[in-house]
Amino acid sequence: MVIRDKIFSTITSIFRRHGAVTIDTPVFELKEVLTGKYGEDSKLIYDLADQGGELCSLRYDLTVPFARWLAMNPTIQSIKRYHIAKVYRRDQPAMKKGRMREFYQCDFDIAGVYDPMLPDAEILRITTEILDSLDLGTYTIKINHRKILDGLFEVCGVPTDKIRQISSAVDKLDKMPWEDVKKEMTEEKGLPEEIADKIGQYVLKKGGRDLLKELRSTPELAANASFVQGLDDMDLLYDYLEIFEVIPKMSFDLSLARGLDYYTGVIYEVVTEASAPKAQKSSKKETSKPANNDPDADRSNDDTIGVGSIAAGGRYDELVGMFSPSGKGRVPCVGISFGVDRIFSITKARMTEEVRGNDVDVYVMAFGPKGFTGMVKERLQVCKTLWNAGIKAEFTYKVKPKLMNQFSSAEKNGVPYAVILGEDELAKGVVKVKELGLPEGHPEKDGVEVKLVDLPQEVKKRIAQRGDKESAIAKAVENVTLEEKN
Amino acid sequence: MVIRDKIFSTITSIFRRHGAVTIDTPVFELKEVLTGKYGEDSKLIYDLADQGGELCSLRYDLTVPFARWLAMNPTIQSIKRYHIAKVYRRDQPAMKKGRMREFYQCDFDIAGVYDPMLPDAEILRITTEILDSLDLGTYTIKINHRKILDGLFEVCGVPTDKIRQISSAVDKLDKMPWEDVKKEMTEEKGLPEEIADKIGQYVLKKGGRDLLKELRSTPELAANASFVQGLDDMDLLYDYLEIFEVIPKMSFDLSLARGLDYYTGVIYEVVTEASAPKAQKSSKKETSKPANNDPDADRSNDDTIGVGSIAAGGRYDELVGMFSPSGKGRVPCVGISFGVDRIFSITKARMTEEVRGNDVDVYVMAFGPKGFTGMVKERLQVCKTLWNAGIKAEFTYKVKPKLMNQFSSAEKNGVPYAVILGEDELAKGVVKVKELGLPEGHPEKDGVEVKLVDLPQEVKKRIAQRGDKESAIAKAVENVTLEEKN
Repeated sequence: MVIRDKIFSTITSIFRRHGAVTIDTPVFELKEVLTGKYGEDSKLIYDLADQGGELCSLRYDLTVPFARWLAMNPTIQSIKRYHIAKVYRRDQPAMKKGRMREFYQCDFDIAGVYDPMLPDAEILRITTEILDSLDLGTYTIKINHRKILDGLFEVCGVPTDKIRQISSAVDKLDKMPWEDVKKEMTEEKGLPEEIADKIGQYVLKKGGRDLLKELRSTPELAANASFVQGLDDMDLLYDYLEIFEVIPKMSFDLSLARGLDYYTGVIYEVVTEASAPKAQKSSKKETSKPANNDPDADRSNDDTIGVGSIAAGGRYDELVGMFSPSGKGRVPCVGISFGVDRIFSITKARMTEEVRGNDVDVYVMAFGPKGFTGMVKERLQVCKTLWNAGIKAEFTYKVKPKLMNQFSSAEKNGVPYAVILGEDELAKGVVKVKELGLPEGHPEKDGVEVKLVDLPQEVKKRIAQRGDKESAIAKAVENVTLEEKN
Repeated sequence: MVIRDKIFSTITSIFRRHGAVTIDTPVFELKEVLTGKYGEDSKLIYDLADQGGELCSLRYDLTVPFARWLAMNPTIQSIKRYHIAKVYRRDQPAMKKGRMREFYQCDFDIAGVYDPMLPDAEILRITTEILDSLDLGTYTIKINHRKILDGLFEVCGVPTDKIRQISSAVDKLDKMPWEDVKKEMTEEKGLPEEIADKIGQYVLKKGGRDLLKELRSTPELAANASFVQGLDDMDLLYDYLEIFEVIPKMSFDLSLARGLDYYTGVIYEVVTEASAPKAQKSSKKETSKPANNDPDADRSNDDTIGVGSIAAGGRYDELVGMFSPSGKGRVPCVGISFGVDRIFSITKARMTEEVRGNDVDVYVMAFGPKGFTGMVKERLQVCKTLWNAGIKAEFTYKVKPKLMNQFSSAEKNGVPYAVILGEDELAKGVVKVKELGLPEGHPEKDGVEVKLVDLPQEVKKRIAQRGDKESAIAKAVENVTLEEKN
């Protein structure tokens, strides 16, 4: 939870830097609100018991509840919101044991009628700010556009009623070789082979602005209105992304399709080296579920952000309108979901330092000859003084604790300072402040005497200095690492 | 949500100051885990649909899931944890419409085998730190001890099997006059009138250490083992609370009984002037539900913390053992729940200032003659520079926005500074920084020119100065208020 908290606070502070506010939507939705929004994954929706009243389900993601909320609040025509909360899926409904999955998602959305691609660009900028701060290693933001895909399928001759199916087959190219995807299109979904081959010519392409240019100069594509509209959007988006300095992270990837039905414009998905699934060499049939049965791995198996990705999203201009009875509340939206559990797994695996158990800066302890009182009241008194000064402090809940036990409690949580009370010292109005973990021979190894009246101030000074020292060390290490890289 | 967030962060920072960590327990529990823990309120538990698998319910509070978690993790023999999360109740199960209630609780618990009253005292100290920081006005922490109550009922001659019922009747003394409580005991619960009268002699008493002394010198009470054990605990607790300087907030109140079954020691409940229910003068029967049907009021109707209170808790030494199959994990615990929704209502009512919509410090805008470009790329560029420096900044998602609209967007959210781009200025490498809301005639009313290269640094300086100025004003206001009080 310490690591997870750190991830939450990093993400939250970046959302707020961009002017977002948080909105809390309920964990329940009417069953009908969720029906028909998630394609074939709808079977994973968890229903509440009918104890008399409306039929409700637990939220499956944070996007549909947000859209429903916007539709119910038509006075809100624009908002930037974030929401960190749990979503719920029934794990393998066919299983005997009804195991449930609950995991965190962390969403950011911009709703409102705006000029094209400005909010979309800011979302991608925010994504890079977050991923850079979380230090997850190399990552790529794959990007595509639903109108480009739709145009492409039209040009290739895919029948309109097959577009969604073919689209979801194409989406599997990140974990299946082309030959298997083609087989799914032709054998399972009945697409003529020549159409599949034509699709293959295009969807295996990836690149940057060069690819946009290449596609624009392909006559048959340039003749399709939907395709060109998508290209225009992408060109404008790239203009803005260039200013935001995020181009090096982007990969325009024609195979990215995203499973969910509600996207209408730009779509994107973030993969890291650690999260990317390896494309299978064999042509053995693969299911969308990973084979891993470890319950911990399961927790991060968040299909809405795509298998193997750590964040995903896109533009959904029609979803709010679906919940608006009058049709008035058709607010266009664009957003992204971060898979916090998957980010957590990667962060944890990359961590070299031990995580401290808590935040405490000072452990207040007492020391005296055998049979001494334990000075419990004096320890409470000193703790109170420190708390009053806003200092994080702890003590042992024993009237007569052993010194060793007090030290080991402090060390267990990595508490940096001990304030040690002794009867003789206290009679002189002093206590000992000792930095824990100093090397032998250090001049302050045995601690320094501090007047009780100066204690809060002295401790604060030391905590601040230690903070400065630590960031200086972190900076030095970073510089060395950078030099090594260059 | 802005106010709620502020409450959460205040509470969280105080929990952490005392060395607490957060643990996240699932929103689901097996139905059997929750059964039999909440007395007659069990009918409000929300069950999940049986879609094949174990029968589950949604958590009703955060205490039972924490105890269950401790029992499942027997290696954890001590922990200080906090948890801010939602709990679920079915609203009025008899109603036709199955409305649900979800609301936040915010719990802090100390688990572990420790010397008596030390963790209990720290919980009460934390409670005062939190309530003082939240500025909720005058409040009182009512305190009592289950062993004192049990001893009292024994001495008065209440049959053992009636103790819980009589106890919950006594607990209603904060909102019903004694005559009604007595009627409930005798007419509804069949207690002989002379026993009820004897109970009445004691449970209407409240006070401080003086009352402890008085009770100790009452022979019939001093002869009861359970009663004396409770008194000893209270005496020791008062010793510690004196050091922690929280005595002025405490009221030892013999009528406090708390409805939940699982308490075994000290119990407490916090009432504020704003939250306290008025004791009814009439002897009309009252239900435990307030008559108010406003859905907002309903949200804060959190019965686990007691009608009219904003926080409540106590010691529960047996609950973990109930979930421990081997009986090994009998970790004693003491804790408190804060009713965030009720605190929120009070805070909101006490607020005199308007709450800002978001946190943004700078609104980046452009200004030019009719038909000018709108400088969208330049605005993005400046925003990027500010974000890179960690400054919270926003811009309008329009290519050619009107200056008025940009100002009104900034004002709507109370953004303190505008950075205004103009083509002539930008050609000279400068922009204008303008503090919004300055009075007419202020020397910087029209803004000041700042070199683009110095912008992040200049803006940071101004934000910091403004922060200092605001806290100085707040301090001055506080001093004036204090002087008025004295």
